[in-house]
Amino acid sequence: MIKVGIIGASGYAGAELYRLLLNHKNVEIVAISSQSYAGKMISDLYPSFYGPYDMCLSQDQDVLDKADMIFASLPHGLSEKYAKVCEEQGKKFIDLGADFRLDKESDYQQWYQHDYQYPGLHEKQVYGLSEVNRDLIKKATIIGNPGCYPTSITLGLYPLLKNQMQKDEKIIIDSKSGTTGAGKSLSEDTHFPKCNESFHPYKIASHRHTPEIEQELSKMANQDIQVMFTPHLLPVNRGIISTIYVSLKDDVTFDEVYDIYHKTYQDEYFVRVLPKGKVADLKFVQYSNFCDISLHYDERYHQLIVVSTIDNMVKGAAGQAIQNMNLMCGFNELEGLMMIPASF
Amino acid sequence: MIKVGIIGASGYAGAELYRLLLNHKNVEIVAISSQSYAGKMISDLYPSFYGPYDMCLSQDQDVLDKADMIFASLPHGLSEKYAKVCEEQGKKFIDLGADFRLDKESDYQQWYQHDYQYPGLHEKQVYGLSEVNRDLIKKATIIGNPGCYPTSITLGLYPLLKNQMQKDEKIIIDSKSGTTGAGKSLSEDTHFPKCNESFHPYKIASHRHTPEIEQELSKMANQDIQVMFTPHLLPVNRGIISTIYVSLKDDVTFDEVYDIYHKTYQDEYFVRVLPKGKVADLKFVQYSNFCDISLHYDERYHQLIVVSTIDNMVKGAAGQAIQNMNLMCGFNELEGLMMIPASF
Amino acid sequence: MIKVGIIGASGYAGAELYRLLLNHKNVEIVAISSQSYAGKMISDLYPSFYGPYDMCLSQDQDVLDKADMIFASLPHGLSEKYAKVCEEQGKKFIDLGADFRLDKESDYQQWYQHDYQYPGLHEKQVYGLSEVNRDLIKKATIIGNPGCYPTSITLGLYPLLKNQMQKDEKIIIDSKSGTTGAGKSLSEDTHFPKCNESFHPYKIASHRHTPEIEQELSKMANQDIQVMFTPHLLPVNRGIISTIYVSLKDDVTFDEVYDIYHKTYQDEYFVRVLPKGKVADLKFVQYSNFCDISLHYDERYHQLIVVSTIDNMVKGAAGQAIQNMNLMCGFNELEGLMMIPASF
Amino acid sequence: MIKVGIIGASGYAGAELYRLLLNHKNVEIVAISSQSYAGKMISDLYPSFYGPYDMCLSQDQDVLDKADMIFASLPHGLSEKYAKVCEEQGKKFIDLGADFRLDKESDYQQWYQHDYQYPGLHEKQVYGLSEVNRDLIKKATIIGNPGCYPTSITLGLYPLLKNQMQKDEKIIIDSKSGTTGAGKSLSEDTHFPKCNESFHPYKIASHRHTPEIEQELSKMANQDIQVMFTPHLLPVNRGIISTIYVSLKDDVTFDEVYDIYHKTYQDEYFVRVLPKGKVADLKFVQYSNFCDISLHYDERYHQLIVVSTIDNMVKGAAGQAIQNMNLMCGFNELEGLMMIPASF
Repeated sequence: MIKVGIIGASGYAGAELYRLLLNHKNVEIVAISSQSYAGKMISDLYPSFYGPYDMCLSQDQDVLDKADMIFASLPHGLSEKYAKVCEEQGKKFIDLGADFRLDKESDYQQWYQHDYQYPGLHEKQVYGLSEVNRDLIKKATIIGNPGCYPTSITLGLYPLLKNQMQKDEKIIIDSKSGTTGAGKSLSEDTHFPKCNESFHPYKIASHRHTPEIEQELSKMANQDIQVMFTPHLLPVNRGIISTIYVSLKDDVTFDEVYDIYHKTYQDEYFVRVLPKGKVADLKFVQYSNFCDISLHYDERYHQLIVVSTIDNMVKGAAGQAIQNMNLMCGFNELEGLMMIPASF
Repeated sequence: MIKVGIIGASGYAGAELYRLLLNHKNVEIVAISSQSYAGKMISDLYPSFYGPYDMCLSQDQDVLDKADMIFASLPHGLSEKYAKVCEEQGKKFIDLGADFRLDKESDYQQWYQHDYQYPGLHEKQVYGLSEVNRDLIKKATIIGNPGCYPTSITLGLYPLLKNQMQKDEKIIIDSKSGTTGAGKSLSEDTHFPKCNESFHPYKIASHRHTPEIEQELSKMANQDIQVMFTPHLLPVNRGIISTIYVSLKDDVTFDEVYDIYHKTYQDEYFVRVLPKGKVADLKFVQYSNFCDISLHYDERYHQLIVVSTIDNMVKGAAGQAIQNMNLMCGFNELEGLMMIPASF
Repeated sequence: MIKVGIIGASGYAGAELYRLLLNHKNVEIVAISSQSYAGKMISDLYPSFYGPYDMCLSQDQDVLDKADMIFASLPHGLSEKYAKVCEEQGKKFIDLGADFRLDKESDYQQWYQHDYQYPGLHEKQVYGLSEVNRDLIKKATIIGNPGCYPTSITLGLYPLLKNQMQKDEKIIIDSKSGTTGAGKSLSEDTHFPKCNESFHPYKIASHRHTPEIEQELSKMANQDIQVMFTPHLLPVNRGIISTIYVSLKDDVTFDEVYDIYHKTYQDEYFVRVLPKGKVADLKFVQYSNFCDISLHYDERYHQLIVVSTIDNMVKGAAGQAIQNMNLMCGFNELEGLMMIPASF
Repeated sequence: MIKVGIIGASGYAGAELYRLLLNHKNVEIVAISSQSYAGKMISDLYPSFYGPYDMCLSQDQDVLDKADMIFASLPHGLSEKYAKVCEEQGKKFIDLGADFRLDKESDYQQWYQHDYQYPGLHEKQVYGLSEVNRDLIKKATIIGNPGCYPTSITLGLYPLLKNQMQKDEKIIIDSKSGTTGAGKSLSEDTHFPKCNESFHPYKIASHRHTPEIEQELSKMANQDIQVMFTPHLLPVNRGIISTIYVSLKDDVTFDEVYDIYHKTYQDEYFVRVLPKGKVADLKFVQYSNFCDISLHYDERYHQLIVVSTIDNMVKGAAGQAIQNMNLMCGFNELEGLMMIPASF
């Protein structure tokens, strides 16, 4: 039983983490904090927590004082100082924000207009893509938990790139996200009468997940990978689906590709490579930690289409953070994450 | 061809009015205004107006100066001064807000915490329920355009009450409204991830449409009518549906009730009394000026259930305002309102 | 560890039961059956079960042979014969259909146009409203699991009626259900382009849950209770919300009512009486076994408005069935039902 | 005033055509037919037509007999015989199905598994993309009305390809369609509890619109164009949005591309090229005949992203059919198509 705490529990990712941790056998939630809502009950913000699960939001310092495993879910630029404290006190730190995801400070500066305060910290950071970096994560003390889009994309391309089966270095990724990805803050785009019965891309060729995606794909492929990444806003609550277009090498067959995917993930509980002919649908992963991947082939042009889908709040945020905690703490990797998705 | 203008065109009702007036043969829209957005194009707020229909939002005074028929769609308490100006200049005024709906200042004071600034003006106001007050509206210069809930309810009960077929003075009304009823302002309740897949009542026993409903029903019945009025927020964009429970007098049969409804509305283009056995559905009136009414009978308890549905933005606001303008100006009552609803 | 089986696992309630039982510590699912889909994998019908949770659908007899606790989720008229077999073999039987809910065969005949095949069986049936009939359920061998609408309504009125605080014998109930209530079968009404952005009542004054509701409310009140029950179809997946209108006795105050509700349910984990001023919303119980109740008062007419909401597939079907199994088998009543609802 | 008729008015496209034609000044609808529903009122299928717009569905022959301009909205393979009759009788024929869209019978055979019955007829067919083939349409007697996906895609690429500004012959098109595109027939995929809160691609690399798209794009570009076309099902009622990825020639700038688009469409009422920085959204074209196009540039890789959106039932079917009729009959091209989209 370890003592865990959440800094930034008032946002969606923080609240989802709280929801999932409540059912985790090996943890005690000792404190949850919020700068804006300290002193309020979490049920004041999220009425589903009313009753047996209610808890008071406190100050960030309270989490730092009481917990031994600390999750932070904050806007970029705010996590570093807490990670620093944790490092000094020998506590484990998992950041659900963007501060510990990028390998190069120059990328962080370019896309987030921010410098690193503690460059030394970042040498210790591990990118928390559980299935890919499992061994590193087990030994890590600071985790940069992957973004939601990058999780769906990197898991969707990992077997292909690792085995260098792609033809071009350029990959086109058309992603669609449910509205929880936009967070708790009110906005025109998520105002119901606007958002409902609507669909559109946004931040075309400029989304901040782009460098994270290219960084991880390039490492997998062991060569520079370029992505055209276009996110869209879906009028649903949860889920991300990425449709990925990639040319296959001339001498690679679709059957070989399928086999590689199957082999790569056959022992992975949370990654399901669907049978040929089936199509991934975000419906079938909602509220679970699964990543479903379906593979498709355009024989006319020897082109692979990968469809990869996750629940953006679970495998794309809070669920993967818990999976990483399980790895770091030597717990059963599945603990707290056995939610079975419904089909209706 | 008359010159019309809209004060408060930046809100949903004002924008819908603008949208509908654009296709009205007898009007020229000379000015539209917004306190908050003066100087902006209306397409900046509502991108569907981009291109051929775009127009610049100006100051309220601009509308008063240029138009001969003035619509106001403003928060309560703000219309009176403009109505006053119109009265002095012999211009016609249709208020889509609440300032000219209540007969008694005491009701306005109690429910809106506001006094009348120009009590004399209110002696001239006519309640713009087109089908019921047609003759008064034709001669009116100041119209209090009915609220959306009251429109669905009063049209749904008019034939019954006018013919005193109800048993009790107490009527239970369970209404459900789409989210456009909550307007353009952002709110927790209309934040997509909250509102979607959600449903709940609100302002139970305290909604400001209550006195308006009781006032009009009591006039129709020629006796005091009390309503339990409970509005709910539906996760759809448009439409109001009211399910109304009323006991029938012992000697009144359901067939008689149906006949009275049929007779009352047989010459009304915009009110459709559905055949027995059919059920009104807000789907089938959306984006139109229709009010659909279906009648149902619980023979075990001699109880009538009336289902009445409208598009809250059209018959419940902008459409009825235009219908009233048509009456006031001697135009064809249907002009500009012939939108045919789709079923999908 | 007991051996459980599900007859009729291909329908929504059966599949939800399967989903929830997978995470129950004390059971082993030994067989699931389907008349129409025997031989298929359940993931062929519900792709969210693909992978670790998949199981083959077998014949009904297979369930009867292998399981000691048998759930049936079948159209009315089909459960009795299986209950008979279970009785003879000393197995426990929980029926999620309508065959064991009504006390009088005459009611069953009137509303379901069917006779009892084994009238003796029905003397042993217990109505599985867990919180109300807990002691009887513990000793029962045949459970008639309550309907979804009746669950929301009876829990919503139990404290009031048991303490005879209502004035009239007539209660008006305006209920709204998500589309899973209509089941897996395709229909015009649940065809997306029709159902989406739609809302309407159905089976007005004729829904088959009516006698079940009146039966249970009358027993609670110890007097005849009449209900006007009007169900509506909500364009959401899950959840039922009932808005209930009931007059209070003259000498009963709203505070007294609130206190009685609070006292009645204070030790019930799954029933949450919300603080005064809060409003129940189906959002906040989805995918959980909670029933949320909020109480409201129209002081102008001394009228109580009860808002009661559940997830129709969980507390309204599969969840309550498991709760009843837990009671019958001496398990922790909460086992397998600790799902925490999300607010987004 | 011409006499028009619709063969196949019971499907969505036929019913939408009926709805729009009702408000067209120059036509009289003399007959509408349905093989399956002959003898029924159209309001039995689409209750929004109840009342003033109701009409009885008759036999196909009735339409052929009475109308001079005939629309057919039928499954592929059924239109040819009616087109033949029209040709012989000198009547105009617009086919909303697939029978008259493909130039080569071999493509039709490959993708539709069907032969032409009257090959001679197809020499007269004109592809009814109004803005592109206006002059041909004016003189045509048989129109193959474009598919919904092809309309959004061809209008979205026309200026670019006509001016040969693309680099590669391969274009990636990620399209998303509302559920009305799947038609009136019930299906698992459009069952509300499945479809709602869902999203997935379908018919990957095998959708029948593919040859139509490649055929028209190749003609525009005057060279072979290959497309990876992946349609997805969106949980909304109406609208198609295509996100199109195309590499620009090295010496072409984004500004030049934008200028070409602007110039090409500046006199087109129904095609709106949005200002730079704005993003097309299907919300803003719903229920209208507009096609909105926004252009985006990934400067890192000199890549153009075109976003093109229409209402699939209007510009993608019934609206464009009317636009073509207007051209063929010498009516005002905008007549009957001035519906202004709402933004909420």
